[in-house]
Amino acid sequence: MERQDKDLAFMLQYENIAWFEDGKVRILDRRCYPREVRFVTCTHYGEVAKAITDMVTQSAGPYTAAAMGMALAAHECRDQSVAEQRAYLSEAAACITNARPTTAKRMAQICKTMTEAAEEAWAAGANAAEAIKARAILANDSRYSKIGKMATYLVEQIPNGGTVMTQCFAETIVGMMLKEAKAKGKTFRLFCPETRPYFQGARLTATVCYEMGFDVTVITDNMPAFVMQREKVDVFTSAADAICMDGHVVNKVGTFQIAIAAKYMGIPYFVTGAPDLVHPTVDTIRLEFRDPDFVLQAMGVKTARDGVKGYYPAFDITPPSLVSGVVTDKGILCPYDLWHYAADGSKGEYEVVV
Amino acid sequence: MERQDKDLAFMLQYENIAWFEDGKVRILDRRCYPREVRFVTCTHYGEVAKAITDMVTQSAGPYTAAAMGMALAAHECRDQSVAEQRAYLSEAAACITNARPTTAKRMAQICKTMTEAAEEAWAAGANAAEAIKARAILANDSRYSKIGKMATYLVEQIPNGGTVMTQCFAETIVGMMLKEAKAKGKTFRLFCPETRPYFQGARLTATVCYEMGFDVTVITDNMPAFVMQREKVDVFTSAADAICMDGHVVNKVGTFQIAIAAKYMGIPYFVTGAPDLVHPTVDTIRLEFRDPDFVLQAMGVKTARDGVKGYYPAFDITPPSLVSGVVTDKGILCPYDLWHYAADGSKGEYEVVV
Repeated sequence: MERQDKDLAFMLQYENIAWFEDGKVRILDRRCYPREVRFVTCTHYGEVAKAITDMVTQSAGPYTAAAMGMALAAHECRDQSVAEQRAYLSEAAACITNARPTTAKRMAQICKTMTEAAEEAWAAGANAAEAIKARAILANDSRYSKIGKMATYLVEQIPNGGTVMTQCFAETIVGMMLKEAKAKGKTFRLFCPETRPYFQGARLTATVCYEMGFDVTVITDNMPAFVMQREKVDVFTSAADAICMDGHVVNKVGTFQIAIAAKYMGIPYFVTGAPDLVHPTVDTIRLEFRDPDFVLQAMGVKTARDGVKGYYPAFDITPPSLVSGVVTDKGILCPYDLWHYAADGSKGEYEVVV
Repeated sequence: MERQDKDLAFMLQYENIAWFEDGKVRILDRRCYPREVRFVTCTHYGEVAKAITDMVTQSAGPYTAAAMGMALAAHECRDQSVAEQRAYLSEAAACITNARPTTAKRMAQICKTMTEAAEEAWAAGANAAEAIKARAILANDSRYSKIGKMATYLVEQIPNGGTVMTQCFAETIVGMMLKEAKAKGKTFRLFCPETRPYFQGARLTATVCYEMGFDVTVITDNMPAFVMQREKVDVFTSAADAICMDGHVVNKVGTFQIAIAAKYMGIPYFVTGAPDLVHPTVDTIRLEFRDPDFVLQAMGVKTARDGVKGYYPAFDITPPSLVSGVVTDKGILCPYDLWHYAADGSKGEYEVVV
């Protein structure tokens, strides 16, 4: 493995995203990564939920953390009766599901799948915690395989020698897109908006791009329109925290604004991810507002005087009219025809079929 | 004077923006204001130019600093022959004019006006430095009077109880807009994008709004579109570093992007300032790129890993099609008919008629 692939591989290994072992869940603390490689250790499922709420892990990280948190819950109650264990897992599922409101439905699916694994283990007299962990790994394998296909379709849309703009940290798909590009002998440069207030773009996305050997430039969040105009951006792409079946895309705040600019500039916006069958329309989305004071600081340093208020919507919603295509594992779909994805009985990215 | 007006008054007093006295120019260091009230002291006009380049003062601050810098230059060469003084001032004017490329033409006008004041002083055997200082004060008085009129027109466009979005730090016009609103018994709330990488919105604009007693909220630069949609913004307004006669507006990077979002959302964008007769078209604008590494930090803390590149355009250009009106001292003009402003022989905001 090449040097530059090593750090990416580090970040994409389940062991480092979130991992259950010896009665503990260990989660890579991305709030300080890559400056510092630190892990948060949880010995109770409630701590896993809190870590998700506290943004210890982002992008798809919370889904792996949730599954491993369910394994931890099963471990915690292992000496109780099956009925008590079932009740305990049900409480754990509710707690973890609500760690971040906007992704609650995806979380609920994951917790449901993990509970099914536990039920099978109980019926077979096996270790439920280990069964859940195995199911979590299987779920990630299935997700990674789907994302690999998305990467293939996405890279086809990027001209060799072209320019790509990202938004926030699209974890797996960013790494896989770059791997796929290298495999196809394609190169392009990337502009990554820094993604305030957490700087995921500057800290995480840019790190992955750089370590994969690509030309990567970080810009502040007020520069995308200028860069599109001046630097001839070919494609704007992001992942999503939810892709509703009516084509509305929920993603890190700022996506909507960049999509508006892309439309104005005639640049396509491709969102990656399977549509979320659990969100038939955008009306089932609960947007998450976080601690408003967090926008009044940057990297821990206060920016505004006392008395000035903050405002912190974590996500925004981009309507289908601004989405050029939804890059799924089954090809690039029209945002107005996402039920097409499920026509053959397929489930979404987070609906694991075992 | 009310308590909340006091700090604004402090910032708007020429003495605190930039002031020539005792052979020194003293400039309020807005890089750390309001956290700290510190002044940069210059004993050579080159230091004034450097302070402008280094962003010690922003918005209209550099224009006052430039004028006071010319007074300093006149003081420095006071014992030389008139011919030598003339040559010295000419060098000073060239140096100060080029401190920031995008505003060079406005700077050149100011330096020319100040040189004229010196010429008059030399002819009359008077102190050229004091004559320039007096002219600088006169120029600011004239500018403030024009801006007062702009404030009247701007406030008419803001509904009572409404919501205004700003961009960067529009210094005098922000303060005057709020004073005018209070005088008319109008109130509204303000959303100020923080304006990376220097945080002028968070540090300066929000401070002025708060100290004038208004409800002010700072957002990160990826939030304007979301806020427009969710919080029913009535008006987006900014000042400009140049308003070209063909209606193109040059202002802090991000303005273009917010103007695109405002257009998409059906929200008017009003730019304040007299058109710049020195820029018949946008083709005479030289956009300023600053140290790219500056975007890779926030409040002095590094955000991206080594090897990742930065990119720092200080300004962007908003086309007239995104500008709803140019709020001048002579009313709100159509961006496509700015020569109208000069039809009666009027000069621009920075073209001082004594």
